[in-house]
Amino acid sequence: MKALVLEEARRLSLRDIDLSMTVGPRDVKIRIHTVGVCGSDVHYFTHGRIGPFKVEKPMVLGHEASGTIVEAGGEVSHLKVGDRVCMEPGVPQFDSPATMRGLYNLDPAVRFWATPPVHGCLTPYVVHPAAFTYRLPDNVSFAEGAIVEPLSIGLQAAKKAAMKPGDVAVVIGAGTIGAMTTLAALAGGASRVILADVVKEKLRHFASNPAVVTVHAGEQSLVDVVRQVTQDWGADVVFEASGNANVFETLLDLVCPGGCAVLVGMPPGPVALDVVAMQAKEVRLESVFRYANIFPRALALISSGMIDVNPFISRKFAFSQGVKAFEEAAAGHPEDVKIQIEMD
Amino acid sequence: MKALVLEEARRLSLRDIDLSMTVGPRDVKIRIHTVGVCGSDVHYFTHGRIGPFKVEKPMVLGHEASGTIVEAGGEVSHLKVGDRVCMEPGVPQFDSPATMRGLYNLDPAVRFWATPPVHGCLTPYVVHPAAFTYRLPDNVSFAEGAIVEPLSIGLQAAKKAAMKPGDVAVVIGAGTIGAMTTLAALAGGASRVILADVVKEKLRHFASNPAVVTVHAGEQSLVDVVRQVTQDWGADVVFEASGNANVFETLLDLVCPGGCAVLVGMPPGPVALDVVAMQAKEVRLESVFRYANIFPRALALISSGMIDVNPFISRKFAFSQGVKAFEEAAAGHPEDVKIQIEMD
Amino acid sequence: MKALVLEEARRLSLRDIDLSMTVGPRDVKIRIHTVGVCGSDVHYFTHGRIGPFKVEKPMVLGHEASGTIVEAGGEVSHLKVGDRVCMEPGVPQFDSPATMRGLYNLDPAVRFWATPPVHGCLTPYVVHPAAFTYRLPDNVSFAEGAIVEPLSIGLQAAKKAAMKPGDVAVVIGAGTIGAMTTLAALAGGASRVILADVVKEKLRHFASNPAVVTVHAGEQSLVDVVRQVTQDWGADVVFEASGNANVFETLLDLVCPGGCAVLVGMPPGPVALDVVAMQAKEVRLESVFRYANIFPRALALISSGMIDVNPFISRKFAFSQGVKAFEEAAAGHPEDVKIQIEMD
Amino acid sequence: MKALVLEEARRLSLRDIDLSMTVGPRDVKIRIHTVGVCGSDVHYFTHGRIGPFKVEKPMVLGHEASGTIVEAGGEVSHLKVGDRVCMEPGVPQFDSPATMRGLYNLDPAVRFWATPPVHGCLTPYVVHPAAFTYRLPDNVSFAEGAIVEPLSIGLQAAKKAAMKPGDVAVVIGAGTIGAMTTLAALAGGASRVILADVVKEKLRHFASNPAVVTVHAGEQSLVDVVRQVTQDWGADVVFEASGNANVFETLLDLVCPGGCAVLVGMPPGPVALDVVAMQAKEVRLESVFRYANIFPRALALISSGMIDVNPFISRKFAFSQGVKAFEEAAAGHPEDVKIQIEMD
Repeated sequence: MKALVLEEARRLSLRDIDLSMTVGPRDVKIRIHTVGVCGSDVHYFTHGRIGPFKVEKPMVLGHEASGTIVEAGGEVSHLKVGDRVCMEPGVPQFDSPATMRGLYNLDPAVRFWATPPVHGCLTPYVVHPAAFTYRLPDNVSFAEGAIVEPLSIGLQAAKKAAMKPGDVAVVIGAGTIGAMTTLAALAGGASRVILADVVKEKLRHFASNPAVVTVHAGEQSLVDVVRQVTQDWGADVVFEASGNANVFETLLDLVCPGGCAVLVGMPPGPVALDVVAMQAKEVRLESVFRYANIFPRALALISSGMIDVNPFISRKFAFSQGVKAFEEAAAGHPEDVKIQIEMD
Repeated sequence: MKALVLEEARRLSLRDIDLSMTVGPRDVKIRIHTVGVCGSDVHYFTHGRIGPFKVEKPMVLGHEASGTIVEAGGEVSHLKVGDRVCMEPGVPQFDSPATMRGLYNLDPAVRFWATPPVHGCLTPYVVHPAAFTYRLPDNVSFAEGAIVEPLSIGLQAAKKAAMKPGDVAVVIGAGTIGAMTTLAALAGGASRVILADVVKEKLRHFASNPAVVTVHAGEQSLVDVVRQVTQDWGADVVFEASGNANVFETLLDLVCPGGCAVLVGMPPGPVALDVVAMQAKEVRLESVFRYANIFPRALALISSGMIDVNPFISRKFAFSQGVKAFEEAAAGHPEDVKIQIEMD
Repeated sequence: MKALVLEEARRLSLRDIDLSMTVGPRDVKIRIHTVGVCGSDVHYFTHGRIGPFKVEKPMVLGHEASGTIVEAGGEVSHLKVGDRVCMEPGVPQFDSPATMRGLYNLDPAVRFWATPPVHGCLTPYVVHPAAFTYRLPDNVSFAEGAIVEPLSIGLQAAKKAAMKPGDVAVVIGAGTIGAMTTLAALAGGASRVILADVVKEKLRHFASNPAVVTVHAGEQSLVDVVRQVTQDWGADVVFEASGNANVFETLLDLVCPGGCAVLVGMPPGPVALDVVAMQAKEVRLESVFRYANIFPRALALISSGMIDVNPFISRKFAFSQGVKAFEEAAAGHPEDVKIQIEMD
Repeated sequence: MKALVLEEARRLSLRDIDLSMTVGPRDVKIRIHTVGVCGSDVHYFTHGRIGPFKVEKPMVLGHEASGTIVEAGGEVSHLKVGDRVCMEPGVPQFDSPATMRGLYNLDPAVRFWATPPVHGCLTPYVVHPAAFTYRLPDNVSFAEGAIVEPLSIGLQAAKKAAMKPGDVAVVIGAGTIGAMTTLAALAGGASRVILADVVKEKLRHFASNPAVVTVHAGEQSLVDVVRQVTQDWGADVVFEASGNANVFETLLDLVCPGGCAVLVGMPPGPVALDVVAMQAKEVRLESVFRYANIFPRALALISSGMIDVNPFISRKFAFSQGVKAFEEAAAGHPEDVKIQIEMD
């Protein structure tokens, strides 16, 4: 089967590869329609590794996917051939302690698409557990279905925050994850999101939204804006979605007494945390690792119109142009939020 | 001072009455601009009592108010003369055990406007604690400020539900409180609200909202609609806002495993609860008594545009027409959601 | 294989029966040592049904069991032959929506020992998923292991209450479940448990515990005792463990503002709930269906000495005397808390 | 009035000082019986400051106090002359936003005994708000009443952890706060506490408690012990009570997936936080600033026998020996947990 294969850092080929296609009784087989290009895919492409995860043999990329069921195992009842679906890419051991506690994303046994040595989904067909395959509502497109994965990270962050209706939220970083977190915070109860980034272009998608205050971090003080909007009380929730370690210098200044910061971005090394400042406001720090039990929520929010992801799907490439799609993504054009690849 | 005084059941007069106007150091004096007519005002008007609370001597009605500061006590720092404000009508003992636990609405010492024997605010001036007086953002009108009170009940319900982003919610009853709860649920995280009422006209305000499924309870089975929308799983949250005891016959059938029902409506007597059915899904039942720490959240949601209350302000009467306003409200026209009275 | 088989209501035999003993790769086979007799076993024995669950063909009884591993499937790593264990009797579909949300006890697909038509464990050997089989710490006996099941219901109730350290708790009903709930509440944060029952003998196990106030409900007013202990504030948590519908007449009077009642007992029909009284204190009602993710916690609390279940193991019978054990249990001697059967 | 006055760093005198004794209508006047010496008192004595709080003019020390009511203001109803009481030392503005949210400990307006420039309670009489004065149950001694303050910090930490019954807890640091946190964790739901300190003598108070595993951090690896006790899963809750920045190097290794660490100790500067390691387990970090709504809970736990603080009251000094008491406390004998001063 043809697939977009990362041979090693910087070397990507569209070529044939042998992939197992055995459909178990609780599995489905899906013809892939659309796959989003994620920052982690790009990082494997450019660096050949993310932290301890190293590409040591050729690996198919891609983990944000939608498609159509072409075969269903004998015990599958909630899906049938022809259903349009999207897939949750990380499969745990279903009877593990973490899964049974509702924390399947934290199961050490998780096998996640395009995390070495597990192959991803940039290939015409995949076999996947039916339990992690979700039917798209009729009014949700394949493109929207394929962006459910990054949106789910934002929604997991909003869930972790335990937001209350009317919360003032701050989102630091307006890249793909910051944008998805902003959408999630607004859908999840925020009255207002104060969104900050050092790159002005990244803020433009939210410029006309009356519930979003954009802060060009190079020119304005985020702390000052938060103080003004909240009349010196601070934000109920701060989402750190930049992965920039310097953010932690003022992060706690943004939070209100008894408030919360959710760490979504992944800084390259340890950050400096001022414990005494944290205690003075009894700040709670939450952290996010992917998502659990979120895909159906993301689909419902898109389908009902509470979240509109379409402005964030920047460009589409044909599968045959997959290598170019990655090169463009790696170039990091500030106007690109999400690049997607469509199978032929 | 002129006031709209309920002399006894069914006898309302616009007449002079002697009201204390002493401004303490932490108080403000407010010139009233707009007062909403609440179902409880109307009930005192028509019945002279609500449960144990009986009108035993003439009482000024009204508790949903906005206005302008005309005097501020010496220790007041967050408000100044000329500020446009709305007021939270129930004042607790500030150093009581309930208040210090964040539950000031549950303090037995609460004095609440227009709950006998406490006078309400349908009068040109009131004195109120500054702590319970909130500045209106510039883009929030007096009319919007005066509807913050009933909206706060809906938001308290959404807060109690501990909603998560993407929840499917049901709201039973589309009267004023049901409508406010629907707005609150959508702002508080719902992907969809399934709103049911036996009176078709009450559903029309939400007919064009793609995130609201309206159910005319006389013609459709709410249980069936919920099953269909949720693919037999049940709703994450059910808000009971009708006060109809019969609703409890099927209430638990609407809730998903591990889900929640929030009791907002006040049935006239005990209802029948099927404990075993509740246990089979480990349903949580929450209840709401007014609100605590909600007014600033309501104002923020209105100001940012996340909640639009304007379609629900049906008609306005001048203060001089106050008695007529009550008669109209008591008539219960289905197209009226909120009637307001404007001071001259 | 020999087993204690309920042929139909009131007819129990110790006889051979054909039971599947296939050990799957993630299963273990266990030689049973001790099995507790539960109220539900007795109810099937005396009535042949519990609500919709009817014994329509011969069924092995028993679901509170401990024993020793005699065989382990090829994928089992945390258990080995010779391990002393206890078993969680309700097995869900592991990839179901409920299980993945951490609510596996609510999965409609659960197969639970000795709930028709599923056979129980009063037989020398059983095969069970390793994921639901827990190693006994060295200082935990087989008898203690076999009482983990009912203790887990009490712990699930304490978990649902979301107790805070120092809570005052009330437990209504001092039968097996009430006793286990009392132990759980004390281990779970209660400063004091006020335990009430109409049968005086059932209170005696707690008579010498300084943290338990026993109330003989026939002679004393529970409401008065709670008011006195809490200086009129009310209890933080009330556990209803009697299943008596009359309890609901005063249940809400026992709860403090913002407090919680947990419904553990199963009344035979609907109860009368005073919604307005519930709202006046914003009481939260929780409900319990068995338990999820509790067995390891129960074992840890027994092993560390924080909970001592031994006083509640009243009598033991040999397997050969199993029918007599059920007859004694059905007789309902007030001094019996838990009767256990030991295999030969 | 005589008082123990800190003139400046290292200069403490027992001398007359002029203190206001006006009893407002909601105040009580208390004759002090016992005052504990806190690490913060000692730090002001030895350094003259704690962070931004500097002793710039003579200040009475002491904030852990019990005594007897000698006068009650006219609006005080829950206390009367002769009542034995203990006092909560930090008084907020009662109608502030923080207080009304139940977060009065975080109110910037808090006036806290012996935090410059507010005088403490090491003097024969104090006047205090009745709302922050708690009656001692008959079986609670003045000494126990005076240790409620540090115990409350431990209980606040346990509350923040949102412990569930049977949690495995780790406490790092076995000084006064670590000891109080250990008691709180056990009372709050822990099945086991793994308590670590580098000073072996500090562990001896818990050596005979079967629910406490003591770890001499100099000789044993805490990470290894936690792995062994939890079978590699990690602890549900880790309480950091040492204030040692190095602890953060391995803190996250101690926590289970989805678990929590509560920061109680105050490191002298920022610590290094490995965000990616935190995310991999979705660890929640909570922080503690004193306590709110905890004193009644502490008293209830002491009175019911669930917590025994007596082994932790090391030595008592007469008021006339107050300076010596501070010198001894400053010497830091490892066998001292809590030194108390008794008024004459």
